[in-house]
Amino acid sequence: MTTIENGVRNGVDTTTLFATIDAVKAAPAAAQFQFRASNRWISGTHSQGTIHGYFGVGEERSHDHVFTADVDHPTVLVGSDEGPTPVEYLLHALAACLTAGVGNIAAARKVILHRVESSVEGDIDLQGILGLDPEVRNGFQAVRISFRIEADAPAEVISEIVEQSVARSAVFDVLTNGVPVEVSVD
Amino acid sequence: MTTIENGVRNGVDTTTLFATIDAVKAAPAAAQFQFRASNRWISGTHSQGTIHGYFGVGEERSHDHVFTADVDHPTVLVGSDEGPTPVEYLLHALAACLTAGVGNIAAARKVILHRVESSVEGDIDLQGILGLDPEVRNGFQAVRISFRIEADAPAEVISEIVEQSVARSAVFDVLTNGVPVEVSVD
Repeated sequence: MTTIENGVRNGVDTTTLFATIDAVKAAPAAAQFQFRASNRWISGTHSQGTIHGYFGVGEERSHDHVFTADVDHPTVLVGSDEGPTPVEYLLHALAACLTAGVGNIAAARKVILHRVESSVEGDIDLQGILGLDPEVRNGFQAVRISFRIEADAPAEVISEIVEQSVARSAVFDVLTNGVPVEVSVD
Repeated sequence: MTTIENGVRNGVDTTTLFATIDAVKAAPAAAQFQFRASNRWISGTHSQGTIHGYFGVGEERSHDHVFTADVDHPTVLVGSDEGPTPVEYLLHALAACLTAGVGNIAAARKVILHRVESSVEGDIDLQGILGLDPEVRNGFQAVRISFRIEADAPAEVISEIVEQSVARSAVFDVLTNGVPVEVSVD
């Protein structure tokens, strides 16, 4: 049984969600965020990333927990397979971003979710990064994500929720439209 | 003291690295990879991603370990802060990809690395994803990454290694140039 109290739906406090949107509307400076990560090389293609601090709603903040995760290339690519590859984290980010959007948007539209699962895959021709074919790009050539959703709503309503999540996804925007990246060596 | 034996440098077995590149050159089909991730919604904006299987060098493969990681929005964005945000994983992926490249390229160029650290930051105006300003994009407006590297090489050589890593980075390519993403609901 799903309980709905005080506007909490799918674990989303919609009262607070709408109040937050109104607050940002009234004071747009609160919407300026800066997210960060750091990374420390360990050996070969193995490194460890850390995510903790960020800036938002006018001040320095940090997540409740320090997050660390290892990254590596698999042995078949001459790594030591100490963690996922960098490109797999892009796919992971995409699935999580669209799923968070589905959670929020379903709640806002009064749709109760029972299950949201997704699978994402990206095709990559390593002749690019190996420098073997100048016609082959370094990154993914295509990415596909498929959702399996059970909710108290017809299929059409569920599809519209996913569409709206795509339309408001930060990761989908970055992956499909790109972003300027500046690299420096101190 | 850094020991160099059998072409192993910075933890990179350069003999195997060059042999792998030659093998792919001779049989380009081996370069066709597909990376994957899956995701399961937990509550609100909180989900958990899993990375394990992939396709490469002509067959189905899997990483030595099943990787799982939680993703959430922070409480200030009406999440429960059970993990990093989706966009932070993009920054994490960028730093790790360029760092892996630095490890490999330095080894190939016979440069011994002592330390490779990086910090990456991305600016985002949440008026985009909150739907408050149609002129504001959903994703990052700019991303910056800075490296601090100690190696047995002059600063110019270190900078060239980073430049080459950027030139052959899968994540840098995807983030700066974008990739077609197809979304479906089963």
